[in-house]
Amino acid sequence: MADLTLLTDLYQLTMACGYWKAGISDRRAVFHLFFRRPPFGGAYAVAAGLEDALAYLEGLSFEPDELDYLASLVGADGNPRFPKTFIESLASLRCELDVEAMPEGTVAFPHEPLMRIEGPLIQAQLVETTLINLVGFQTLIATKAARVCDVARSPAGERETVLEFGLRRTHGPDGGLSASRAAFIGGCHATSNVLAGKRFGIPVRGTHAHSWVMAFDTEREAFEAYADAFPGGSVFLVDTYDTLEGVKVACEVGAELRAKGHELVGVRLDSGDMAKLSIGARDILDAAGFPEAKIVASSNLDEVSIAAMKKDGAKVDVWGVGTRMTTAYDQPSLNAVYKLGAVRETTDGGWEYRMKVSSTPAKRSIPGRLKVRRFTQGDEWIADAIYDEGLGLSEGALVGPETGTTRSIPPDAKGEELLVPVLRDGARVGERVSLVAARERAMASVDSLPSELRAIETQTRHFVGVDAELSAIRERITEEHR
Amino acid sequence: MADLTLLTDLYQLTMACGYWKAGISDRRAVFHLFFRRPPFGGAYAVAAGLEDALAYLEGLSFEPDELDYLASLVGADGNPRFPKTFIESLASLRCELDVEAMPEGTVAFPHEPLMRIEGPLIQAQLVETTLINLVGFQTLIATKAARVCDVARSPAGERETVLEFGLRRTHGPDGGLSASRAAFIGGCHATSNVLAGKRFGIPVRGTHAHSWVMAFDTEREAFEAYADAFPGGSVFLVDTYDTLEGVKVACEVGAELRAKGHELVGVRLDSGDMAKLSIGARDILDAAGFPEAKIVASSNLDEVSIAAMKKDGAKVDVWGVGTRMTTAYDQPSLNAVYKLGAVRETTDGGWEYRMKVSSTPAKRSIPGRLKVRRFTQGDEWIADAIYDEGLGLSEGALVGPETGTTRSIPPDAKGEELLVPVLRDGARVGERVSLVAARERAMASVDSLPSELRAIETQTRHFVGVDAELSAIRERITEEHR
Repeated sequence: MADLTLLTDLYQLTMACGYWKAGISDRRAVFHLFFRRPPFGGAYAVAAGLEDALAYLEGLSFEPDELDYLASLVGADGNPRFPKTFIESLASLRCELDVEAMPEGTVAFPHEPLMRIEGPLIQAQLVETTLINLVGFQTLIATKAARVCDVARSPAGERETVLEFGLRRTHGPDGGLSASRAAFIGGCHATSNVLAGKRFGIPVRGTHAHSWVMAFDTEREAFEAYADAFPGGSVFLVDTYDTLEGVKVACEVGAELRAKGHELVGVRLDSGDMAKLSIGARDILDAAGFPEAKIVASSNLDEVSIAAMKKDGAKVDVWGVGTRMTTAYDQPSLNAVYKLGAVRETTDGGWEYRMKVSSTPAKRSIPGRLKVRRFTQGDEWIADAIYDEGLGLSEGALVGPETGTTRSIPPDAKGEELLVPVLRDGARVGERVSLVAARERAMASVDSLPSELRAIETQTRHFVGVDAELSAIRERITEEHR
Repeated sequence: MADLTLLTDLYQLTMACGYWKAGISDRRAVFHLFFRRPPFGGAYAVAAGLEDALAYLEGLSFEPDELDYLASLVGADGNPRFPKTFIESLASLRCELDVEAMPEGTVAFPHEPLMRIEGPLIQAQLVETTLINLVGFQTLIATKAARVCDVARSPAGERETVLEFGLRRTHGPDGGLSASRAAFIGGCHATSNVLAGKRFGIPVRGTHAHSWVMAFDTEREAFEAYADAFPGGSVFLVDTYDTLEGVKVACEVGAELRAKGHELVGVRLDSGDMAKLSIGARDILDAAGFPEAKIVASSNLDEVSIAAMKKDGAKVDVWGVGTRMTTAYDQPSLNAVYKLGAVRETTDGGWEYRMKVSSTPAKRSIPGRLKVRRFTQGDEWIADAIYDEGLGLSEGALVGPETGTTRSIPPDAKGEELLVPVLRDGARVGERVSLVAARERAMASVDSLPSELRAIETQTRHFVGVDAELSAIRERITEEHR
């Protein structure tokens, strides 16, 4: 990854300078990265982007040209924005952060830290913007993909093939690369993005576009030329001129292919009433002797339109999902936030809790050095508990951070810690989760979620509660600020 | 820029291989990159992203590791996806394309090519995905920024300061860098994105976050520490606990600053009823003797909310616009397309027109090797004409490509060619437009647009017509495919 140290908001550096000047830049601090509302009207998110975040943190350092740039900045009064001695102090900065995080592919709920960042205040503050950017975006896309892939199932519940075709409308090159990576974690089977294939080992897929058909005098010539070039991999895009006529031409060229010992792999539909056209295409293919040929659909698809097409009886085998998945079209930001949870006066002092107070309950942050424990009983999701590492998880009932409703954990429930150590003093620790393993974790977790939490649109929430003792501290701090 | 040659859809390479196998990869072809609907419910777009597109095209080449990756791919039948000889042919590929394009900052309308790409079919096809990615995204964000900056005006119509604060929610690192660049072209005055400042020379701005306030025991201590660090640049974020109380504390610290010979620069509001709070904040600041202190607003702003706040009498001097601008929240894709317009059989043969036919009039592309001429009379925008370079602009009336309505150009109207040569045989030609010049062009163009085309939400369209002779050809081709 390119050097991202300066890929941050100026105010992170302004605050860093302020902490340095106030003599508190090495004060130990804990921040949490989380979201407040599950995206897309659903109930859950799928954590992603951690690998990029850790690569960024490990590489945190200011190069000479970066320091020169900072030294060149002037404030409103025309004087240098940053003192020379501060800039010199940045030259020796190396990452000393400790990070706990949810492994990629973990199903996450509102208010749960996806990452906990602890270390010198100046460092933990500096990385806010970049971490939100990297983890917020990939989590958003992995979630979208999980939702799309969850809907693309056969009547028996088996997952159908979903291909990610969204590169062209993503937000710049990294927007495209990160989106392909995150969509794979969320459950997509392959991508059209060749560079993502090369860099991440994701399977790549794709055949031809309308322009291929238009480059020849007739659709038939175009299909024949494609069959000639790729006799074993012919999927014809049939809607350049007239979809069902195109399917008939595909069958004719399929017959020629068969005469040469190859089989028509399938056809792709990219416009029109896709449910109706897929039924018509299936009929034509079956009648022409191609019952094994697949129908690929690919026009502005997302979980909503796939569900609607399925309701309308669409005969689609493979879903090519693009723009609406890789730009998270209906909600292009997770709106992740990064909030201070605690600070320590001196290295041997105790932790002081800190929180953002707000008249909106959802916007009050949770103070502490947080951990998250997920409780299950067999296949049943019971509740997630957010608690302070120092206080531990007390005996009392959990308290909903927005609602104030309480829930007790059955004594025989099984608990799993969701935040695991991934960085210690700036160096990677723990096992690295492969992209394939992250994808499997995501799919298995979504499969095991209760159906009311998997609905496309739902007000139902998995119970996420704050430890009773910590919740009382949170209420006390809120009172103090009133 | 990193090597983007493989940042493409696999089908571009599949088609490239097919063209190569069919012996037509060097057939000359012309493609156009355009959009069909102006984004965000408005009437116009602002072209951006060309510099990145040209840097990509100039650098187009396959490195050995990229060719090795392509050679490693297998098709559905388990055989290598691409013949070895094809991959060898890619090794010597260098860009031979000719490109005409609208300079960055040009106001563009539906169906007008933002870029025209001409050259060997294999190359002109290969670059589709990357060009749509680079130009589509930056055009989207420049357009959003132009709309936001157009609304952020004083009652006298003067542009107020708009700061782009959106890095954290952008789609990955490039999503952030490109967004900052495009937002500046659209009219933003500065960015919070330090790397964008370094790389593109955009002014950077920013002071402190809630976490700064939370890192101290009291808000007052936090403000005092900030004033101590930056006595000449104090803008205090006042809403960590209670906004108007925070303004009072800011005034107290402002008085201390004044006693030391410095002035309070301003306060920033980031939550709540911003219009009401800004009026309250203005009153407090004025009463406390700080009539010059600026009020900065920054909470989920976009052109709609800024217009609403202005209607409610908001007293805001500086607008900090983030997520909703840099993710193009209400429409995160321009949905730009790239369509074949013409092919040539042999190097000395004539051009054959090609077009995408569709039952939806808006989805029929315009055949030809297109140029765009903008006609004005004094300050008045008359019409834009899309015509074929070979046929020229005929005497007949222009024909709306979707509506079929016609319009004649007054003989004394002034015409300006919007597509200018930028690449010849793969090398840059013509004057490079600086970012500052692109921004000035965009702002001047938006300022001169008729108000009905600048409305936030409008069905009014600038008349864009196809040359009469070309339009007749387009109808004939459509008929032939019926």
